[in-house]
Amino acid sequence: MAEHFADRLISAVLARGAPCAVALDPVYSSLPAELTSRVGKTAPVAAELSAILEFSRRVLRVIVSHVPVVKINSAYFERYHADGVSALDELIAEARRLGLLVLADVKRGDVGHTAEMYADACLGWAKGGEVFQTADAVTISGYFGRDGAAPFIESAKRSGKGVFVLVRTSNPSAAHIQDVQALDGRKVHEIVAAQVAQWADADDAIGKCGYSLVGAVVATRNAADARRLREIMPRSIFLVPGYGAQGGRPEDFQPYFCRSGGGALVVAGRSVIFAHSAPAYRDESGNSWEECVERACRDFVADICRVAV
Amino acid sequence: MAEHFADRLISAVLARGAPCAVALDPVYSSLPAELTSRVGKTAPVAAELSAILEFSRRVLRVIVSHVPVVKINSAYFERYHADGVSALDELIAEARRLGLLVLADVKRGDVGHTAEMYADACLGWAKGGEVFQTADAVTISGYFGRDGAAPFIESAKRSGKGVFVLVRTSNPSAAHIQDVQALDGRKVHEIVAAQVAQWADADDAIGKCGYSLVGAVVATRNAADARRLREIMPRSIFLVPGYGAQGGRPEDFQPYFCRSGGGALVVAGRSVIFAHSAPAYRDESGNSWEECVERACRDFVADICRVAV
Repeated sequence: MAEHFADRLISAVLARGAPCAVALDPVYSSLPAELTSRVGKTAPVAAELSAILEFSRRVLRVIVSHVPVVKINSAYFERYHADGVSALDELIAEARRLGLLVLADVKRGDVGHTAEMYADACLGWAKGGEVFQTADAVTISGYFGRDGAAPFIESAKRSGKGVFVLVRTSNPSAAHIQDVQALDGRKVHEIVAAQVAQWADADDAIGKCGYSLVGAVVATRNAADARRLREIMPRSIFLVPGYGAQGGRPEDFQPYFCRSGGGALVVAGRSVIFAHSAPAYRDESGNSWEECVERACRDFVADICRVAV
Repeated sequence: MAEHFADRLISAVLARGAPCAVALDPVYSSLPAELTSRVGKTAPVAAELSAILEFSRRVLRVIVSHVPVVKINSAYFERYHADGVSALDELIAEARRLGLLVLADVKRGDVGHTAEMYADACLGWAKGGEVFQTADAVTISGYFGRDGAAPFIESAKRSGKGVFVLVRTSNPSAAHIQDVQALDGRKVHEIVAAQVAQWADADDAIGKCGYSLVGAVVATRNAADARRLREIMPRSIFLVPGYGAQGGRPEDFQPYFCRSGGGALVVAGRSVIFAHSAPAYRDESGNSWEECVERACRDFVADICRVAV
């Protein structure tokens, strides 16, 4: 029997002393010159993808000492079709070998049999001796209600994996749908949150640590909303994007944590992986891009640890 | 300049005399015995995928004379990782060569730069002489508001392609979120629909035929809801799943059409592609599975033409 996802995640957070994840969403045009200068802007697509894969592998080796989780958004690989998906699978396998938990940020959403197929694709399946190794957890849409989430949750229960349901996203226009107020006074995202809480609170979804394998993606910048969501979903681990390049300050993330200092995982992306292009890190001592990533990653972790009391 | 998606779609519907699409969502265990008997239930994964690809190709050749559009759900291929994506790409190219419009039912949803990457992946991109050929249209989530839809819509405008936004899905639990009533009396899915109408009605989104490249996935079984959505989104082509195996009767689809008989595309899936296992089609005359698909496809088109006055 595979160990429960929340238990694995909480152990990994405690081991690194960091309730933090790095989002690895590589874009060729933003890579360090070292990796692109040989082939340049007009590189053939295959060379572009090779550079992205090398960059991603080297980022993994830097961040593994500092954070417990890497979040990889599949869009940046799906863009390269089959070769991209193959590179993504290699990267997921390498991250897991290094000891990182891997969160596949795929935001899939469908129902019934199709959702089962996506759960297979993202959380793994096996036939005879053949096994598709995949990520430790996945992000999914909440717009379909239970029928959309259940196939992912059932798959995760069988395999010791996790599911994070999109509750409130961070983009400016999210409010037009997600903050609409219902007749009963709740916002739409709170209604989604109440459903997530129901799934998360099922006996067979809770780990020894008290948290559930059903988490939530919560990215409001409104502290009152964040605290209300924390109350609605006490057993769910929150995945909270927005640190750094997206403009979130460390103190903005405090309301997402439980009073015990647990229950949330803050995500930094471009501010860490592309730190080589930030004046704060690219100093005159001639430090390498990997040193920039390492410094930015340390600063990120220190910032979050300060508020996650 | 590529021809406008809605113009291409309406011409194709008129040419076939069928406002219909077949959903090609192949599952190994449901394939005709002819395609699986050599390798059987315990076939290695590669053999499974080959059988799926052969089946799918042969279905395309049967349906191309009867319907203008094939909808392919990527989940059924993503399950096989890179090899599956490669098979999906082959299938999309073959469908287009045969003269079918291809709708990639991927239900992607993300924002900003990530949504641009998904738009590239699903609607195509090029670099130098290298071109990724893809589907003619794509389904996307509406939960993010404008920031999630805009990158797909902009990509579609540039390339003569289309976007269908999920407004109301057909699954039983959809109502828990999508039918929640807001303070202003509208249901959540009507609020999504009003946003879709805004995007669809932009001058540069409307084709010569009067319809927009921004369509909607609408699958309520409530005729009053369907009529209200038709009023809210007069310029959008509705993609309407649910015929056949999902229990929809022909008359249920009438409210989705405009008074002119246009503006909707009804989808049948399993009831057509797996017709070989339906007693109505598998008669004693020893007809082949492809003859079953053809008969079921004809019946589907006749049923819908009867109500799409």
